[in-house]
Amino acid sequence: MATSSSLTVSQALVGRTISNNSTLHSDRLSLPGFNHSTRTLLKSSFTQTIRISRSLRKNNNLISRSSSSSIKAQAVETLEKTDTALVDKSVNTIRFLAIDAVEKANSGHPGLPMGCAPMGHILYDEIMRYNPKNPYWFNRDRFVLSAGHGCMLQYALLHLAGYDSVKEEDLKSFRQWGSKTPGHPENFETPGVEVTTGPLGQGIANAVGLALAEKHLAARFNKPDSEIVDHYTYCILGDGCQMEGIANEACSLAGHWGLGKLIAFYDDNHISIDGDTEIAFTESVDKRFEGLGWHVIWVKNGNTGYDEIRAAIAEAKSVTDKPTMIKVTTTIGFGSPNKANSYSVHGAALGAKEVDATRENLGWPYEPFHVPEDVKLHWSRHTTEGAALEAEWIGKFTEYEKKYKEDAAELKAIITGEQPTDWEKALPVYTPESPADATRNLSQQCLNALAKVIPGLIGGSADLASSNMTLMKMFGDFQKNTPEERNVRFGVREHAMGAICNGIALHSPGFVPYCATFFVFTDYMRGAMRISALSEAGVIYVMTHDSIGLGEDGPTHQPIEHIASFRAMPNILMLRPADGNETAGAYKVAVDNRKRPSVLALSRQKLAHLPGTSIAGVEKGGYIVSDNSSGNKPDVILMGTGSELEIASAAADELRKEGKAVRVVSLISWELYDEQSDEYKESVFPAAVTARVSIEAASTFGWGKFVGSLGISIGIDKFGASAPAPKIYKEYGITAEAVIAAAKSLI
Amino acid sequence: MATSSSLTVSQALVGRTISNNSTLHSDRLSLPGFNHSTRTLLKSSFTQTIRISRSLRKNNNLISRSSSSSIKAQAVETLEKTDTALVDKSVNTIRFLAIDAVEKANSGHPGLPMGCAPMGHILYDEIMRYNPKNPYWFNRDRFVLSAGHGCMLQYALLHLAGYDSVKEEDLKSFRQWGSKTPGHPENFETPGVEVTTGPLGQGIANAVGLALAEKHLAARFNKPDSEIVDHYTYCILGDGCQMEGIANEACSLAGHWGLGKLIAFYDDNHISIDGDTEIAFTESVDKRFEGLGWHVIWVKNGNTGYDEIRAAIAEAKSVTDKPTMIKVTTTIGFGSPNKANSYSVHGAALGAKEVDATRENLGWPYEPFHVPEDVKLHWSRHTTEGAALEAEWIGKFTEYEKKYKEDAAELKAIITGEQPTDWEKALPVYTPESPADATRNLSQQCLNALAKVIPGLIGGSADLASSNMTLMKMFGDFQKNTPEERNVRFGVREHAMGAICNGIALHSPGFVPYCATFFVFTDYMRGAMRISALSEAGVIYVMTHDSIGLGEDGPTHQPIEHIASFRAMPNILMLRPADGNETAGAYKVAVDNRKRPSVLALSRQKLAHLPGTSIAGVEKGGYIVSDNSSGNKPDVILMGTGSELEIASAAADELRKEGKAVRVVSLISWELYDEQSDEYKESVFPAAVTARVSIEAASTFGWGKFVGSLGISIGIDKFGASAPAPKIYKEYGITAEAVIAAAKSLI
Repeated sequence: MATSSSLTVSQALVGRTISNNSTLHSDRLSLPGFNHSTRTLLKSSFTQTIRISRSLRKNNNLISRSSSSSIKAQAVETLEKTDTALVDKSVNTIRFLAIDAVEKANSGHPGLPMGCAPMGHILYDEIMRYNPKNPYWFNRDRFVLSAGHGCMLQYALLHLAGYDSVKEEDLKSFRQWGSKTPGHPENFETPGVEVTTGPLGQGIANAVGLALAEKHLAARFNKPDSEIVDHYTYCILGDGCQMEGIANEACSLAGHWGLGKLIAFYDDNHISIDGDTEIAFTESVDKRFEGLGWHVIWVKNGNTGYDEIRAAIAEAKSVTDKPTMIKVTTTIGFGSPNKANSYSVHGAALGAKEVDATRENLGWPYEPFHVPEDVKLHWSRHTTEGAALEAEWIGKFTEYEKKYKEDAAELKAIITGEQPTDWEKALPVYTPESPADATRNLSQQCLNALAKVIPGLIGGSADLASSNMTLMKMFGDFQKNTPEERNVRFGVREHAMGAICNGIALHSPGFVPYCATFFVFTDYMRGAMRISALSEAGVIYVMTHDSIGLGEDGPTHQPIEHIASFRAMPNILMLRPADGNETAGAYKVAVDNRKRPSVLALSRQKLAHLPGTSIAGVEKGGYIVSDNSSGNKPDVILMGTGSELEIASAAADELRKEGKAVRVVSLISWELYDEQSDEYKESVFPAAVTARVSIEAASTFGWGKFVGSLGISIGIDKFGASAPAPKIYKEYGITAEAVIAAAKSLI
Repeated sequence: MATSSSLTVSQALVGRTISNNSTLHSDRLSLPGFNHSTRTLLKSSFTQTIRISRSLRKNNNLISRSSSSSIKAQAVETLEKTDTALVDKSVNTIRFLAIDAVEKANSGHPGLPMGCAPMGHILYDEIMRYNPKNPYWFNRDRFVLSAGHGCMLQYALLHLAGYDSVKEEDLKSFRQWGSKTPGHPENFETPGVEVTTGPLGQGIANAVGLALAEKHLAARFNKPDSEIVDHYTYCILGDGCQMEGIANEACSLAGHWGLGKLIAFYDDNHISIDGDTEIAFTESVDKRFEGLGWHVIWVKNGNTGYDEIRAAIAEAKSVTDKPTMIKVTTTIGFGSPNKANSYSVHGAALGAKEVDATRENLGWPYEPFHVPEDVKLHWSRHTTEGAALEAEWIGKFTEYEKKYKEDAAELKAIITGEQPTDWEKALPVYTPESPADATRNLSQQCLNALAKVIPGLIGGSADLASSNMTLMKMFGDFQKNTPEERNVRFGVREHAMGAICNGIALHSPGFVPYCATFFVFTDYMRGAMRISALSEAGVIYVMTHDSIGLGEDGPTHQPIEHIASFRAMPNILMLRPADGNETAGAYKVAVDNRKRPSVLALSRQKLAHLPGTSIAGVEKGGYIVSDNSSGNKPDVILMGTGSELEIASAAADELRKEGKAVRVVSLISWELYDEQSDEYKESVFPAAVTARVSIEAASTFGWGKFVGSLGISIGIDKFGASAPAPKIYKEYGITAEAVIAAAKSLI
């Protein structure tokens, strides 16, 4: 851990960077870390915070060690002074900002914002604690719009609350090229948006992850005299989210874990895209959630029942051992005289005529995008209040750090994402003499080594811990009554597992969440994995039983096309280590890459430790493992990944005995290899050498890139089979003999 | 519809083929249809059935038009005469067949069969109606082991019931190469197994599909004087299935549809792989299922409470408007003195010592794999009874056919899989003058044309019918009270949708189920899609909004890697049509391929109808759309799929104006192209022509195969963006200008 001057600490505490650099996002070459301009930004952000808080302290004496309650009290006082007419006006402002933005874009979803504006207003104006000028303040309340298509609700709220990310011009460029207001909420585009939603059900599962993170950190770091971690997670989800299986998985876990500070609003509007929910969704959601162990409240009038909503939130907060679902019955497109309560208002602009009719109906005389002065004034206090909240918390942290030095250092690492120096030295090193082992077991050795040095490492398996080998032996289970522990038991819920890990990763940049199942079951959580990649959540996917090598369980359990399918996915690292050093290298890469997820494909079967493998090699993605040629002119290049690198090496040994000059290349990560210089690539794969053979117990799809049009790819382009693994390898021709024969046919 | 002689009818009614040809399964080249040996098999199977039923008729006068009740009565009578001791013995036979097979394989899952043997015995011996000598008899009760790892339960039951697919030697080769008893149930390996399970949650969703199929056919074809369709669907699922989101999705639909003939047994044994379910699964499953609209019964003693189980099934049958979940509390590994009720008995052989201890504990003196004579004798009646059931039904169908000729013809087409002759002539034909349209709309035209001629066409969308354009206008909605209709409303439940369609497809070979969502959300149902491919279920996946061309919804909704990911998957057809004729061609191929699923990627945006596209071309997977070269020596080959074929064609037009000889190739389906002859391939892609440019608004992964090492692939290897589609195309360089520049750089 770096030593910290006061400024460094403060910088660190500001949390993650605000990046306007959209190139960063789409550029696979970018690695995480603070560049110069980011540092400046962080510094100025922190300076600004201090300035504001000082001024507040002077002016209204709000900032003191115990000022949290006074700030809350002030908020409540403000609320009590706010007359209902002004709330109405604010709510209608939200509605019309959404209507106008969708109308201007001629694209988008006005229905949800019009129906959910009241709960949105109450959340952002009366309930949530945040600092609009630092969207990454660590102890903020988190808000997730799981029904992501309704993003104009959130953009309108961020705008009113004073977030710099959503200015009036941003609202006006809704859904346009390069704007901060894309068609669904994207955390990497819009500071203030916590996670990326749109694919239904993901958001509520992310919210469970965020709430898990809070509960874990609070249990681990809070002290009797200092609640240094203390925030709520709020979520709005709709009928669509409720129908998705991932939501049920995640909510079952939330109930099991007793996430009392998770409060979800179910926008019960009875309309989905195909019409009334009666056509496909007639279950009792209330009863299901009671079964899942949630506290359930029904707000019957979500359109105008402000006090009902307020009372429900108060009740939800009073229930501390269960998450709460507040079912809020609303009218989709509330206010539109001809389209409200119909699917036509869900996902299309109202049209000029209906916009006029809605303006008339709701008594809204203003121009598009206008925020009335009294509404603007009312919301303006959040800038000062938010700064005060953060400043107060910084003060609190300073005190905390004095008393609890080690805890503070760990917490700071989680908040800032700065891992302890030399953490990678904890990774195990192997020699060819080390006993042969399955890479799933070697993975467990790495995880247990990292558990000692990475404060934010947390994770587990979807009911396969003893097969995936993912338990950190020094920790117990994260459970309702032991939330300070770090082994998470996800049950057989792969999709929620991935999305919950996304929530953990995006809670604080120092979290390193990992999750595990059989590689073939990535099919169950691909929706969440893609969001990891898109939203720059550096989740580590520990995927064992990575080929026909798992044997008897048969084709339902044997991945074939999965490696190729992740190689084709943007911003994700697909790593298939061959032995101990490559497994350690895979973890080195995975922990380093906090802005792109890693998929580790690991063997069930034992593998030898090969001479020539190395962490440094892994970091290049592809590298020479052994070679008896000279002048960069081998007779043939054999290449492979994972368990087949051993086979390629054995084939090379045989060919060398016959006097051939053979190079063996490990291609553990195509993505990392692609990032190397042309010069390096030529040193590994000289263009002049066209005799090339690849071997991988998986689809050959894509290997043409490396073997070229004259080479041979040995792989599996059909489904697997149920039998002992060595038998399947033999029958499927994944053998050294096959490699030797292919090589000889090319030399 | 082919005219039918008596023999043809009978053959047809036998249902689908029994194939022992495992090559067929893994061979992508095979097309469905009856070959000579299959016909012989069907014929002999039918002859055998008749012989048995004649003998029964003579001997005990069981076969008459109203004999159904007498057969049932006989079964019950047998049951009543069966003393509990014999049931105990039969149940223990099942337990030990499982124990012995797992022990011999030294691999497998003994725990579930040992716990579920009682319910298994009662189902197969006392309740279910089936014909062991014709596992494909249409009107059989369906059984699905959703907890597929417990497959030795089903193999033991099939063995006792007299199925030829599971002889003693098959039990002894459990989980071995080439056996009929793979590590998880596989319908394509083991006649008597209805669907392929193992990946948890799939089976219960398949069961919902099977029950939907029955309810639909019964409503459509039954007459006041003839219940020609009348069977139950039974399913056993465990804690693992219950945790999976797909199960909740499917069960929510089953409740919504009121599938009264679906009876699911929940093996409530409190143990999952990682230990007691307390660590991750503490919800009230009962309450959740009540919320989902199911009838719930709890059998507290599933280990020995035979009468409790019988009573529960009787009660379940009496509830006709709801599916029933019978929660059966069992002890995993019942009988094993040291391992019962622990995770150690879930997924590993007991070990010789514990097998001995279990033999002693349960008083089982027999050698491994022994079936006591009285048990054998008791079960032997199923062969004659099953034949009688089928023969009776055939008699009933003969009567039905006389009275209801047209209905019988339609039903027969669904039972046999023989589509009406010339059905493909119903597909629409387009000319370059036809108005430009989105392929999603052209798809709807095809679906509506096929609705008139394909009796088994049934399907719908996951709440995107109006975006996916999947409504068949001549039909209403399949709903609880209108199950004879064919538009299915799946709600926002992609994963269950896919698995339900697998169930429908595998119910009867003439079903042509289709389902729809945005292409990107294949990520949510990939688990089910892979099972379509593996289990040879010819589901048609209608996937619209297939690229950045969907525009403003942004990167969460824009597929990039999805096309490549399906091209890498075995036994699935990935089709991306470019216009009307290609869309019609895609449907031609999809309907023809009843043993492999098809994924149709369709555009949101309008596309021109191109000169040169054709259904015949589509059937070759890749073909020349336009060409101004001679002697098979174009200067450059431009290739593309879907919406980018138009761009390639526009680029070709420009290049030709400059005097270049340009060939344009559509590569709508790489799988079909791969099946063409080398000669044909050379005629499309002459080896000598290395100047090749591909364009596809998707990952370039895999295109190297066609453009070669000297060619250029234009595509998208990062995530999309939120903006109007033309703007994204331009910014991402998916333009004719880019194609022209690339081509010029190569010529």
